[in-house]
Amino acid sequence: MSSSNQVSKDYYDYSAWYDNLEPTKPPLEVIPPCDPTADDRLYHICIAALSLVVMLVLAAFTKRKRLCQGFLKGIPGLLSPVNFLDHTQHKGLAVAVFGVLFCKLCVLVLAPNPLPFIQDSTSEYKAPLVSFAGAPLKEYWKILSLFYYPALYYPLLACGTLHSQVGYVLGSLLSWTHFGVLVWQKVDCPKTPQIYKYYSLLTSLPQIACLAFLSFQYPLLLFKGLKGTVKTNASEDLDSSYYRDYVKKILKKPAKPSTSRTDKPKLSERISDALKSYIYTPEEVFRFPLKLAISAVVSFIAVYQVALLLIAGVVPVLHIVRAGINEDIAFLLAGFNIILSEDRAEVVKIVIYYTWCLEVCYISAVTLSILVTLIMLMRSMVLHRTNLKGLYRGDIYNVYNRQRTVRPSRPALVCWMGFTSYQAALICLGLIIQTLVFFICLLFAVFLVIIPILYGQNLMLFHIIEHMWPFWLTLFLAVLIQQVTARFAFIKKDAGTRDLDNRSALFLLTYLLFPVNVLVGVLLGVWRMLITALFNIVHLGRLDISLLNRGVEAFDPGYRCYAHYLKIEVSQSHPVMKAFCGMLLQSAGQEGGAGQKMRDAEEGIQLVAQEKTQNKVSNARRARARWLLLFTLVNNPSLLGSRKHFQRQSSESFLNGTLNRTAKEGSKKDASQKEECKEASKEAAKEPETPATN
Amino acid sequence: MSSSNQVSKDYYDYSAWYDNLEPTKPPLEVIPPCDPTADDRLYHICIAALSLVVMLVLAAFTKRKRLCQGFLKGIPGLLSPVNFLDHTQHKGLAVAVFGVLFCKLCVLVLAPNPLPFIQDSTSEYKAPLVSFAGAPLKEYWKILSLFYYPALYYPLLACGTLHSQVGYVLGSLLSWTHFGVLVWQKVDCPKTPQIYKYYSLLTSLPQIACLAFLSFQYPLLLFKGLKGTVKTNASEDLDSSYYRDYVKKILKKPAKPSTSRTDKPKLSERISDALKSYIYTPEEVFRFPLKLAISAVVSFIAVYQVALLLIAGVVPVLHIVRAGINEDIAFLLAGFNIILSEDRAEVVKIVIYYTWCLEVCYISAVTLSILVTLIMLMRSMVLHRTNLKGLYRGDIYNVYNRQRTVRPSRPALVCWMGFTSYQAALICLGLIIQTLVFFICLLFAVFLVIIPILYGQNLMLFHIIEHMWPFWLTLFLAVLIQQVTARFAFIKKDAGTRDLDNRSALFLLTYLLFPVNVLVGVLLGVWRMLITALFNIVHLGRLDISLLNRGVEAFDPGYRCYAHYLKIEVSQSHPVMKAFCGMLLQSAGQEGGAGQKMRDAEEGIQLVAQEKTQNKVSNARRARARWLLLFTLVNNPSLLGSRKHFQRQSSESFLNGTLNRTAKEGSKKDASQKEECKEASKEAAKEPETPATN
Repeated sequence: MSSSNQVSKDYYDYSAWYDNLEPTKPPLEVIPPCDPTADDRLYHICIAALSLVVMLVLAAFTKRKRLCQGFLKGIPGLLSPVNFLDHTQHKGLAVAVFGVLFCKLCVLVLAPNPLPFIQDSTSEYKAPLVSFAGAPLKEYWKILSLFYYPALYYPLLACGTLHSQVGYVLGSLLSWTHFGVLVWQKVDCPKTPQIYKYYSLLTSLPQIACLAFLSFQYPLLLFKGLKGTVKTNASEDLDSSYYRDYVKKILKKPAKPSTSRTDKPKLSERISDALKSYIYTPEEVFRFPLKLAISAVVSFIAVYQVALLLIAGVVPVLHIVRAGINEDIAFLLAGFNIILSEDRAEVVKIVIYYTWCLEVCYISAVTLSILVTLIMLMRSMVLHRTNLKGLYRGDIYNVYNRQRTVRPSRPALVCWMGFTSYQAALICLGLIIQTLVFFICLLFAVFLVIIPILYGQNLMLFHIIEHMWPFWLTLFLAVLIQQVTARFAFIKKDAGTRDLDNRSALFLLTYLLFPVNVLVGVLLGVWRMLITALFNIVHLGRLDISLLNRGVEAFDPGYRCYAHYLKIEVSQSHPVMKAFCGMLLQSAGQEGGAGQKMRDAEEGIQLVAQEKTQNKVSNARRARARWLLLFTLVNNPSLLGSRKHFQRQSSESFLNGTLNRTAKEGSKKDASQKEECKEASKEAAKEPETPATN
Repeated sequence: MSSSNQVSKDYYDYSAWYDNLEPTKPPLEVIPPCDPTADDRLYHICIAALSLVVMLVLAAFTKRKRLCQGFLKGIPGLLSPVNFLDHTQHKGLAVAVFGVLFCKLCVLVLAPNPLPFIQDSTSEYKAPLVSFAGAPLKEYWKILSLFYYPALYYPLLACGTLHSQVGYVLGSLLSWTHFGVLVWQKVDCPKTPQIYKYYSLLTSLPQIACLAFLSFQYPLLLFKGLKGTVKTNASEDLDSSYYRDYVKKILKKPAKPSTSRTDKPKLSERISDALKSYIYTPEEVFRFPLKLAISAVVSFIAVYQVALLLIAGVVPVLHIVRAGINEDIAFLLAGFNIILSEDRAEVVKIVIYYTWCLEVCYISAVTLSILVTLIMLMRSMVLHRTNLKGLYRGDIYNVYNRQRTVRPSRPALVCWMGFTSYQAALICLGLIIQTLVFFICLLFAVFLVIIPILYGQNLMLFHIIEHMWPFWLTLFLAVLIQQVTARFAFIKKDAGTRDLDNRSALFLLTYLLFPVNVLVGVLLGVWRMLITALFNIVHLGRLDISLLNRGVEAFDPGYRCYAHYLKIEVSQSHPVMKAFCGMLLQSAGQEGGAGQKMRDAEEGIQLVAQEKTQNKVSNARRARARWLLLFTLVNNPSLLGSRKHFQRQSSESFLNGTLNRTAKEGSKKDASQKEECKEASKEAAKEPETPATN
């Protein structure tokens, strides 16, 4: 639009404006559809076939191994690629595969062609991003892809499960292929027309990182295996020293029993304690369950993906809009009766400045949300650890705020299965909502407070506050009077006790200030709403706390899921129980020559029965094993619940010897435990000399 | 607009439309400004003077009485019109006066002339309702009126405090005057132009009711006083049998110690229990503190006032709008590109129908909010009672969820002073927000679900759901599969215990369903947001529960206020302490002939010191009193905290003899108590034979 054109034109010459609107927009950078050399369709057909072959080879290899070791028949290792209840196994492989899967999920939710096999049937780049209504067939493909990708990446997990050289070799090959092709594709076509030119590249970065980790880890495992530094048996878990270390630590007396100070901690100490509780510092003798480790990594990737989408989806658009602003905007605004300035050039300046403010607000909001979410994630990790350690100690009341039975149940199992997914989904949702809310708050702050102060214009908010100052002053004075009189006139400290003083004056003041206090109460109510909303929005992504009131915590579906998840985790992978199983297996292994074969992670507790049927061990050995079992059970009655032939239903697990902080549990529980102990002692008394004869 | 005119007119002939717009609106009912015969200004000058005279008369009378009864000097009864810490006094007077005051507050917040003295200075009916910006002077008057009205109604309270015939006579006169003039004014001018023609009348109904109650109550008290059925001494509180009944009841063993059933209650029982907990049924041996009674009544009035404002402010406007809809609306809508129908008469029908729907939605929303708020109020009363009884028992942990010191402190006192006001303000705020939210929800339901179903049009929502059905089906099937397999495949019940089964299949399923579960998690997150928001909105008006998570409850300003309020209430008016004081006074009264004079509600605990200085009672009597005191203190060590000369700071009150359910308090507390008991016993041992010699 030339300046000579402007002079001759009327201010409201709309026809000229409409004509000029199109060419004033800067030409969009046209990104040609890019077909990578490694065609996605061909690649997927090949890699799916390759994965199938790998699985077949692994199955054949496992079959051969099984024939050699007849008794391992019970464990179809291939079909259980990852033991979620294991604390000690190398978590890297599982975490990386879940990371890859989650990245793929993020891509396929937005992708026009979720499954590469149907690439040809629809024109790729003209379809809307999420077309539920338009193409029902595509919908089915999308659903199918939800199951295709887990299956595709399955061999990556399975190769690591078998703890065999063949598995590692195949795993290396497979991960290299995945990694190589992905990097090749991204190098070939770094720009795509989707959302933002580099979005596709940026969104696949975590996937590339995870695949790179796998490509590095498999050869490393292979190398270690060749050197013989890695144990190849399946019961690695129970052999690990972790559980024994854990038991040793809890049996050790605390070095410094917290000096029972009756005085309150100082404010500075309380603040530093509160800050510390948000920073996760690893502890030596505590490892996270695998599922929590996966959740943490997947959540982190979720934060990255959502933040990327939020930035890439909005900021480039704002840039384009800003670049397209010219003097025509003055006409447009005048059409809405908004006249920012008489000079059109100044209007353009102002509008550009405003869009710049908008962008700053938006980016600040996204950054703030990311920071808040990351802090919340870290706090979650701290709380997960505290809760798990508490439950291991049997401190059920502190964790759940009521008495609960920690044992597997149907809802608990369902929640356990979905925990990682729910955590990731809630982090995504929380981040989006936080960004939205923070953005709106920042907009208000910038356009109603900061810009008016800087430029001295549009001081609406300040005018309102200014005109209401007698009102604010009255409220402030009323509150101040109450505080001061409460401090100095109505409370008397006498010989260490505090009591009310000047009661009649207190009652009089209470009566006279009643109407003013109602207005103070309105402010209090507004503050209550704000703080509640802010707290809930900030903590929306966290499953480990309930957003509801203490009494109805379980109605919060997120927290309910977490509470159930903990039940399964604690009841199934209690470190003390695992240490006990490990010790039992070890002692059996030392005595029986073929003991090495008998180590079995899942069946440890049935040791006695197995011995009887399989090996025909001597009476003395059996008796010794029984005695060991009984000795442990008497000292740890909570383990009774995990026994197969345990006839009673009560199985709330807590360790009698190490901890009895759950005073709330009362006498009923103790009585039943004592009874159990007595029963066990009786049984032990029947063969009192057995250990001595051995 | 005649039909002949329509035919000749173009559809978009806006000039004709603009011309016709004005006359088509039905003429508003013009309400002339009405000056009641009892002019407000004159009335207020008179009644203020009258109140002043009443106060002077009362003061003179009290002075005379004081001269007769020298020792009563310490209680300036006139300046302490209401003892908020008294459970047994007749609550009606105080409640009614607070009701009147609150109604007046509601009126003056919206009134153009808050103080009737400035009626002439501004034109009354043309000023905006709330004109903070326009008339700063009026602002000052409004603030002044916040203090004027409590002072104006003060004599109504003060007359009842003195328990004298003169007070009752003056009270009757004053309340009749207030009542009479108010009714006269409302009969004179039932219609006002404010908001809605009958709004002013309806809003003063609770005020009229409260004043009528006072007008009836004062003569009744006078009549009873003449008959001599009412006690005229000031220590009525401690004489009351209520406290003794309360103590008797808690000392009685429970008739049915809850049969310790280990099995869970049935679902029907749990539902009926939950329903019962929302219905307040009075208990014989429990009376609410005065402050709670006032809060309940004021909250109830607040619900009425806000509901009235919500209805009167919106529904008449909707009626006017509906009456004004004619065929021009078709042009207006066409201007926004909304064409409901080709036939203009049909457009009118449709629009009228829609406004009718709007009105129905709005009224339903208001009704729903009122019902919810009333239920919440009732539930609050139930919880108040439970909490108070719990704290009387010393059950601090259950109420506060942590250990707290129940004694007066500065913040506690401030919260106590404001409690009634805050409760009322929060109820108002809660009701408004509930109405807003329910209205929006109902609008969505009606216009997106009900009307489309009824008329088969605009089925957008259903189309979206219909097109997404494979997606919903997949999610449903995924959840179903998890539930069913968890129930039948993965959990084995064996000899009463439950354990995981088919672990490898469980892990496999968990892995494969990971992507689907992420999508389920998004739904779960949305559900979490909805349920949290709904819960908090419904419970916004309740102070007795925190809207925040268990760990940060105290950050909720409403709940914090309630928690502090309870501290003061419990520490100052513990029924057992009061019963103890009453018994001490009684025994002293029986022995000393002039004991009747010595009854003093506030000083009962200092009995021993008073006796020493005033009456020179015999050693034996003093010893007996001391022994009684010690006996009680040894059995109820928590009362030590209330003693003046108690040297230690620990004063968490709970009754050792009656209750020891607070197992959490641990050994530290017990130790300190035992020490105290020992000290007390030692002191008692010094004069072991005193009771026998008496």
